[in-house]
Amino acid sequence: MQQIIEYLRANHERYLDELKTFLTIPSISSSPEHKDEMQRCAEHVAGHLNDIGASNIKVNPTRGHPAVTGEWMGAPGRPTILVYGHYDVQPVDPLELWEHPPFEPHVKGDKLVARGATDDKGQLFMHIKAVEAILNQTGELPVNVKFLFEGEEEIGSPNLTEFLRDNKEALKADVVVVSDTDMWDAGIPAICYGLKGLTFLEIEMIGPNADLHSGEYGGAVANPAEIMARMLASVKDESGRIQIPGFYESVQEQSEKEKQLLGKIPWDEEAYMKRLGVEELWGEAPYSAMERAWLRPTFEINGIWSGFIGDGAKTVLPSKANAKISCRLVPDQEPEEIEEIVKKYFIENSPKSVKVNVQRFHGGKPFIVPLDNPYMGAAAKALNDTFEHELYYKRGGGSIPIVADFKEILGLDTLLVGFGLPDCKAHSPNEDFHIPTFHTGMEAIVRLMYNIGEL
Amino acid sequence: MQQIIEYLRANHERYLDELKTFLTIPSISSSPEHKDEMQRCAEHVAGHLNDIGASNIKVNPTRGHPAVTGEWMGAPGRPTILVYGHYDVQPVDPLELWEHPPFEPHVKGDKLVARGATDDKGQLFMHIKAVEAILNQTGELPVNVKFLFEGEEEIGSPNLTEFLRDNKEALKADVVVVSDTDMWDAGIPAICYGLKGLTFLEIEMIGPNADLHSGEYGGAVANPAEIMARMLASVKDESGRIQIPGFYESVQEQSEKEKQLLGKIPWDEEAYMKRLGVEELWGEAPYSAMERAWLRPTFEINGIWSGFIGDGAKTVLPSKANAKISCRLVPDQEPEEIEEIVKKYFIENSPKSVKVNVQRFHGGKPFIVPLDNPYMGAAAKALNDTFEHELYYKRGGGSIPIVADFKEILGLDTLLVGFGLPDCKAHSPNEDFHIPTFHTGMEAIVRLMYNIGEL
Repeated sequence: MQQIIEYLRANHERYLDELKTFLTIPSISSSPEHKDEMQRCAEHVAGHLNDIGASNIKVNPTRGHPAVTGEWMGAPGRPTILVYGHYDVQPVDPLELWEHPPFEPHVKGDKLVARGATDDKGQLFMHIKAVEAILNQTGELPVNVKFLFEGEEEIGSPNLTEFLRDNKEALKADVVVVSDTDMWDAGIPAICYGLKGLTFLEIEMIGPNADLHSGEYGGAVANPAEIMARMLASVKDESGRIQIPGFYESVQEQSEKEKQLLGKIPWDEEAYMKRLGVEELWGEAPYSAMERAWLRPTFEINGIWSGFIGDGAKTVLPSKANAKISCRLVPDQEPEEIEEIVKKYFIENSPKSVKVNVQRFHGGKPFIVPLDNPYMGAAAKALNDTFEHELYYKRGGGSIPIVADFKEILGLDTLLVGFGLPDCKAHSPNEDFHIPTFHTGMEAIVRLMYNIGEL
Repeated sequence: MQQIIEYLRANHERYLDELKTFLTIPSISSSPEHKDEMQRCAEHVAGHLNDIGASNIKVNPTRGHPAVTGEWMGAPGRPTILVYGHYDVQPVDPLELWEHPPFEPHVKGDKLVARGATDDKGQLFMHIKAVEAILNQTGELPVNVKFLFEGEEEIGSPNLTEFLRDNKEALKADVVVVSDTDMWDAGIPAICYGLKGLTFLEIEMIGPNADLHSGEYGGAVANPAEIMARMLASVKDESGRIQIPGFYESVQEQSEKEKQLLGKIPWDEEAYMKRLGVEELWGEAPYSAMERAWLRPTFEINGIWSGFIGDGAKTVLPSKANAKISCRLVPDQEPEEIEEIVKKYFIENSPKSVKVNVQRFHGGKPFIVPLDNPYMGAAAKALNDTFEHELYYKRGGGSIPIVADFKEILGLDTLLVGFGLPDCKAHSPNEDFHIPTFHTGMEAIVRLMYNIGEL
């Protein structure tokens, strides 16, 4: 182990240079004019897999951008890790806010600044280089490894589900490892063991058959914007608890172990409020902001519009009102069930004076890895042994739909072992990657492979 | 009287032809490229005043379009009527919905179709021609008459208040007569003796200092769209009564006479719902839809917007939410007072998690003419003697700010004696004027002048 660590340290400069080259490719998946760059980037990744000695390397075409696969299967009888990452990046707008061009990586202090530095090229690259180091020093890996690097994560992975279905056999493994999330802070590692599911709906309420003069008709006929406000307001009681019947029915309560682990997290509500610029937080009682963000299902208005929304005054009584709402779900809530009861709530409780239409957008299941999962134990030990600070077990309020797909299609749990820092500006101008974490993280990945190899 | 009526009837064709010529002038006040046409139209009106023998005729420049004035003051000791109307018209968009060009008047059945036919060229013209008929047949009028025809009504009369102030002495009169409202139906006259005032506000609620990821932050921090919905919903209780302290404090209750008169109105709620395409009406209990529309102050949402309002799904927790709201006011509510208490309600009752800004737009006082006003009695008798059906005394839910100005600046009550029909499509394509009402209405105006002359 020490030998491998020393090799990694001796190659810091080269790894950083190679990552910089990788970061010069503008692999913006959402932009049709970058299609050729996406192909070039996929081939670049395949080239790295080839360089480290992986086999069965493919740049798999999809209906969108290619998915790169490769493997090292020289440890029969040992567990197989499926390493997932994505080589595509977010758009760079607004370009004028970048201090340097986004695809000309440069070092500023201890940060490497470029689009994709953290999300996810840098983190993807750490796995490739960790494998390189082990193979270089020992000629073999303690586990079998399959790589799956897609090019469409930033546009919602539209072709990945199908790719998983079509390659179920080839992707057979024991656990998925993904580095596309954050540490708690520099030097403080974290494993994200749970994410929320999602249901997204648009609610439309139609009142009178045309916009009306609010003087002539105001007061006489129901205003759909007002009905919408009343219905949305009725969803939660004064304590922030969602009143839709059955909403909390399948919600898993925290285990004692979870309570104990989450209790260690130094969530600072004052700093949180200050960062958001609000004077008070608000949400479901009696839960803390952390519990509400991570453990409790939510109902949020993502958009609302009705009537005249231009400058100035127009005394219209609107014909209709729309709202986009989403619920974030926790185990064991099912997106389809929640969608159904929310829809039912709005349709059955709205007054007859409006017609209610509910349109479904996308959904996704919540995800959780049991805290006693042995792969998670292996990951935790690797992180604790590598960093100066004991890891935090955390959950997240967001949704990573592919993680649910890994479970559903491949039957695999996913370890979210992320090395981004909370201030890395992923998706924003001047995205960076903390260089010391880039290096130390590779040591953690090496340990993770050995720990899993011993299971 | 019979002689004057016969003269009017003998001149039907000519009056209609003259009105058609008047309607060919595209006097669209909102359109800068029609500035010359506005001037031409004002001069055309002045020409008519000259033709009937009015004196002191002026095309008064304003900061916008000219106001035309003239008078016949040959009845010393008798009351003076100030006849107000407007020669400007609404824009014609969407032009493709007009069956004939809007400024090429044509007769379709018993309707004269053209932009401005009812609103307000046709009705203004009736007053000019009624005076012509009396002067032609008797050589004098039973009252003194001052004419005031403005060219900016359809753009909110931005220069009229100043014009009234600057010409207070010249416009001295006993009562204002305006024909710019509707009859109850063909053959059924109406006097509108009350209109609502207005206060219009925009409310902004600012939560977190940026749009947030609704997964990461949802549930933890207050969503300003939700607070806006809760606050708007809180304005009315289940029975539709406005909960803002002091809101109803100055509201005049109906007198017995008013109850009796309004009780005669055949307001058909079934037909009303059918026309609006709604299955039920809703509003402040225990009032009827008519009472709510005409007699009760209202609070309506005119517009609301927050977050993502484009196509598709975006899981944003919005940083702010905005709503435009207006209250229609009844005597004796004061716009400034209502504005103040509404503002106070939103600022004081919103949780600390949002900052609330309230911006004022325009306002206007409510208007009412006492039912025992002798000029109104004179108008009522004229209408009852002319039409086949007894008139209805009605009120309106809209606001005509100039009427409040006539009271405030000139100290005059206004008689709203309108000859439009409810289906005249004012402001819409294919606006028309009911030709039989055009003719009969002039007879009513003649009787009105005689009745006022006898006061």
